[in-house]
Amino acid sequence: MVNGRMPPAEIEKRSFAIIQAELGGRTFPADIVPVVYRVIHTTADFDYADNLRFSENAVARAKAALQAGATVVTDTNMALSGISKGTLAQLGGRALCLMADTDVAREARARGVTRATVSMEHAAKLDGPLIFAIGNAPTALIRLHELIADGAVQPALVIGVPVGFVNVVEAKELFIGGDTPYIIARGRKGGSNVAAAIVNALLYQLVKREGF
Amino acid sequence: MVNGRMPPAEIEKRSFAIIQAELGGRTFPADIVPVVYRVIHTTADFDYADNLRFSENAVARAKAALQAGATVVTDTNMALSGISKGTLAQLGGRALCLMADTDVAREARARGVTRATVSMEHAAKLDGPLIFAIGNAPTALIRLHELIADGAVQPALVIGVPVGFVNVVEAKELFIGGDTPYIIARGRKGGSNVAAAIVNALLYQLVKREGF
Repeated sequence: MVNGRMPPAEIEKRSFAIIQAELGGRTFPADIVPVVYRVIHTTADFDYADNLRFSENAVARAKAALQAGATVVTDTNMALSGISKGTLAQLGGRALCLMADTDVAREARARGVTRATVSMEHAAKLDGPLIFAIGNAPTALIRLHELIADGAVQPALVIGVPVGFVNVVEAKELFIGGDTPYIIARGRKGGSNVAAAIVNALLYQLVKREGF
Repeated sequence: MVNGRMPPAEIEKRSFAIIQAELGGRTFPADIVPVVYRVIHTTADFDYADNLRFSENAVARAKAALQAGATVVTDTNMALSGISKGTLAQLGGRALCLMADTDVAREARARGVTRATVSMEHAAKLDGPLIFAIGNAPTALIRLHELIADGAVQPALVIGVPVGFVNVVEAKELFIGGDTPYIIARGRKGGSNVAAAIVNALLYQLVKREGF
């Protein structure tokens, strides 16, 4: 049935029921279920049931950071656009992307590095709990990993889900098994939509949405 | 090798070579190759080699519309965010999304329909060649199909790539085999990122990018 009048909350409920059914008897730890389901909901791609990797207590720690008014830093305006900024604001948090910042662009050109690299350096100086949601640039993840090793930043969570065929797999592997809390989409897949979906899956556990 | 200094044009060239290699000997009509490859590049999902459906001459007709300064209408700010608006502007075109428009929101509430439905009705009244890039809302596609049937709009191209589990497959099928030029991701998959990637794949055939 093609129905233009089903409320969004009902569509989402049915979608999650279909996802659950198609995952068969497969179970996940309770705290990661909303993340895995929302990423599959965003992509219709069940590979994420296998690809997503969580450090221990990553979700609990991320939720604590969000409740403390975390800043979510993205590496694309597209991911920023997909994050429920109203929900984030209800918790006293904010989201930002420095990729289009003119200072970042100028510095990147002058140094011959990517804007993603420079945007991570600038973001590392921000106050308060920081959640990095990286859906595009492996160079953002690589520089972030160096900044953490140097003690320049201690993220509350790194969402590492860039997509692609060159340097992407390796950049993600830098975080797997490390001490920084992470949610990583292992392998080539990911994207700005996936990064935003993961942030929203965390937020929607903390703030009830109208109609949901 | 994890290398933060490879230029974007080089990364993209290597990525497309990997995609070509992994597609094996598989060939596509020359005009759709850039679209198929860019969608796979955006998602790392080779399913799109099978899912994408093109009406006859869809790419040629879309390129003609873009060269005539088409308006690209999206159903999410996320898709709008991913479209290369600078490239579009070089051709005299523009992109817009009416989903966050306050008039659209008010009217949708009053009528008990989705904002996507109302945003399509408003967009149908715009002048000039129109390209609809729908990556999220099946109700946008459904309403657009009705508006076309009623003679209220004659799109130069409908990019129909919403993602999801409820009403999505059916909404896309409305266009397959029809008279309106289309690029459809058959099945559940798609997304705002895919919608933007298709628009950009068309644009990048018309305007050479710096370094590429």
